[in-house]
Amino acid sequence: MKQMQLTSDISIRRTVAEDNAEQLASVKEIIRNVRMNGDAALLEYTEKWDGVKLETIRVGPDEMKEAVDRFEPQLLQDLSEAAGNIRDYHENQKQQGYKNIKDDGSYVAQRVTAIGSAGLYVPGGTAAYPSSVLMNVIPAQVAGVGRIVLISPPGKDGKLSDGVLAAAHILGIEEVYKAGGAQAIAALAYGTESIQAVDKITGPGNVFVALAKREVFGDVAIDMIAGPSEITVIADDTAFADEVAADLLSQAEHDPMATAVLLTTSQQLADAVSLEVERQLETLPRQAIAGKAIRDYGMIYIGKTMDDLIDAANELAPEHLEIMAADAEALSEKIQNAGAIFIGRYSSEPIGDYFAGTNHVLPTNSTARFSSALSVYDFVKRTSVVYYSEQAWQQNEAKIARLARLEGLEGHARAVESRAWKKENGR
Amino acid sequence: MKQMQLTSDISIRRTVAEDNAEQLASVKEIIRNVRMNGDAALLEYTEKWDGVKLETIRVGPDEMKEAVDRFEPQLLQDLSEAAGNIRDYHENQKQQGYKNIKDDGSYVAQRVTAIGSAGLYVPGGTAAYPSSVLMNVIPAQVAGVGRIVLISPPGKDGKLSDGVLAAAHILGIEEVYKAGGAQAIAALAYGTESIQAVDKITGPGNVFVALAKREVFGDVAIDMIAGPSEITVIADDTAFADEVAADLLSQAEHDPMATAVLLTTSQQLADAVSLEVERQLETLPRQAIAGKAIRDYGMIYIGKTMDDLIDAANELAPEHLEIMAADAEALSEKIQNAGAIFIGRYSSEPIGDYFAGTNHVLPTNSTARFSSALSVYDFVKRTSVVYYSEQAWQQNEAKIARLARLEGLEGHARAVESRAWKKENGR
Repeated sequence: MKQMQLTSDISIRRTVAEDNAEQLASVKEIIRNVRMNGDAALLEYTEKWDGVKLETIRVGPDEMKEAVDRFEPQLLQDLSEAAGNIRDYHENQKQQGYKNIKDDGSYVAQRVTAIGSAGLYVPGGTAAYPSSVLMNVIPAQVAGVGRIVLISPPGKDGKLSDGVLAAAHILGIEEVYKAGGAQAIAALAYGTESIQAVDKITGPGNVFVALAKREVFGDVAIDMIAGPSEITVIADDTAFADEVAADLLSQAEHDPMATAVLLTTSQQLADAVSLEVERQLETLPRQAIAGKAIRDYGMIYIGKTMDDLIDAANELAPEHLEIMAADAEALSEKIQNAGAIFIGRYSSEPIGDYFAGTNHVLPTNSTARFSSALSVYDFVKRTSVVYYSEQAWQQNEAKIARLARLEGLEGHARAVESRAWKKENGR
Repeated sequence: MKQMQLTSDISIRRTVAEDNAEQLASVKEIIRNVRMNGDAALLEYTEKWDGVKLETIRVGPDEMKEAVDRFEPQLLQDLSEAAGNIRDYHENQKQQGYKNIKDDGSYVAQRVTAIGSAGLYVPGGTAAYPSSVLMNVIPAQVAGVGRIVLISPPGKDGKLSDGVLAAAHILGIEEVYKAGGAQAIAALAYGTESIQAVDKITGPGNVFVALAKREVFGDVAIDMIAGPSEITVIADDTAFADEVAADLLSQAEHDPMATAVLLTTSQQLADAVSLEVERQLETLPRQAIAGKAIRDYGMIYIGKTMDDLIDAANELAPEHLEIMAADAEALSEKIQNAGAIFIGRYSSEPIGDYFAGTNHVLPTNSTARFSSALSVYDFVKRTSVVYYSEQAWQQNEAKIARLARLEGLEGHARAVESRAWKKENGR
């Protein structure tokens, strides 16, 4: 891995350039076609790109049952345990409304209600991750979303992966469709004969899925557009190089554009991790992907003090931040910007991807400065409520009318005053 | 106003078409120029479009003081009282983190921290609303945002409006800049010599501001892109036509594309409101704007039952919903989709614009199905924290490795297992 001294005058934040003009044109055409031709367009695209001619778009109950029966019982149990942990963590995110009542009988309140429906996109092929099903569906369920549907591209056999269907089964999701890419996003956003439109679309996907989500945004809600995975490890000389290297590679193997950064005060550790990364890469099945990520986006910064490392981490605002150092917990309190923090030697990042209970849908591209993990909050909306009694209105109408006139909005002033028009006439 | 019977087969949701290709090209060039040339570009655009050659971009303390001294004391007091109500309402939105500890010593936690800095765009000219300053700044302050700045285009005299500066003064905001349009958004997003970049930009603006916010989104956070104002009134025959008409006009006067809808079970009220709207329009200063909005986007729907009206309101998902009917509060409980609800005769919508305490930055274009008012939640981020003890790791590493291998992510499995490599060798 490349090494560099950490000084205050270097820019460590990475920039990802995008130019997707060609794909965008294609995505717009796909959306237009699905809006116009519904199921027929979906089936046509599935035949063209997924290589299978489907009869029906919805996964039937038998198909679901067969997949679950085929699925290894031990894995079903592992997934169920993970689902339980995820549900426990997200239960704490349930929001209550509130109501502030004044002596004059007026009140202002906030009501929290679940959005009506949510659609989860699950990528197909090698990236059909059961864990993504858990991470997207459970927050929506905890929020109380009434209708939750899954959509995912079928394999050439016309089927979805057993793991994805098993995860859906564990969560009690019965509305599952077979379609992928921009056409699946269009179907969720605008509906077809088979698929009723949803209010919010979440879930990861390739560039076509991401562009389609951007396009339909506004007509429906979407979750964040996730960039390539990122891991930053803060480590001092108490960390073990092989463990640091293994954790860096765990994110590098996701994507050739994944970022893996080590921030350390120890030149010795830096050198050892460099060697370990190369050694472990040799036997890694996804060596090509992880190797390219390490070469292009891997970096070791050597800082003078732990505080320098903390500053750098806050500047990077990484998706995942591990702290393997003495006083890891105390150091973690100084972190302002990170999607998720993993504290201490035994908190290897994949624990959060699969099992601990926190959500693995996390902000990338330094957006942890202002964004957060997918959560129950993303599946509710809050409605403000204003009730003014006659007394409250009477005590305040002159002030409100003055403020409206200050802004040149005479119609606003008159609206508030209009309640007096009839009172003056005894009504 | 146009009238129509409410039946289940008509589409009542409005669609707003946009085509801003020309403005977008201009906005991209402005952003490029500001990123490249900083203050010089800002000053150049201010001279060109605001018609004033500025020496400095920041508002000085003397300028602020003079504006406040000129401002009418009664209005200062009204603004202060409004600010107090807004602060009270938003205080309830403070979020606490949580930490779930297990018997094996592991924990998962959520930490809530304020974003680092926020910039509020305040439109200039006739739309320089002090109330917007209160509504955007106070949630950020309650969230604990450390640095809050204002930016607004100067008048031809090189000054900002006294009202805007007075509102800033009341809130203790001292960092105020003079620049408008896309160039102001670019300066907030990327910084110039005078203006340090912020993490989040909020506030209303014209099409150039809206397009610029869309462009910089991702590099910084933005609030929602607000469409034209919307009001829907649900009324039965207990409502007074002149009050309903005045409230409809209060939103219609915002924008020629504003939407004003009456949903009623009373044909008599429908007819009376139509007449009243015409009558009140005659003397309204913003008659041209409000009249065009009423003609183009005004509509009265007559339904058979109150439940029909509720269904229609949920379908419209309006920014503002007034309920002037018997049992208004009970009816309001059936509303799923609305930015803000105003209950009963005395809760005229402008009360929420200025004074009650709820936020007047609300979702438009039917996005209340999945979006909410600007709030404290918009100025915080949540970081997940995972701590696994050695015992917790040992009990779960095999499960996690199995789940990783199910997804074909061998590197993830090895990372979790790596903590055993040295244990096997006694470290």
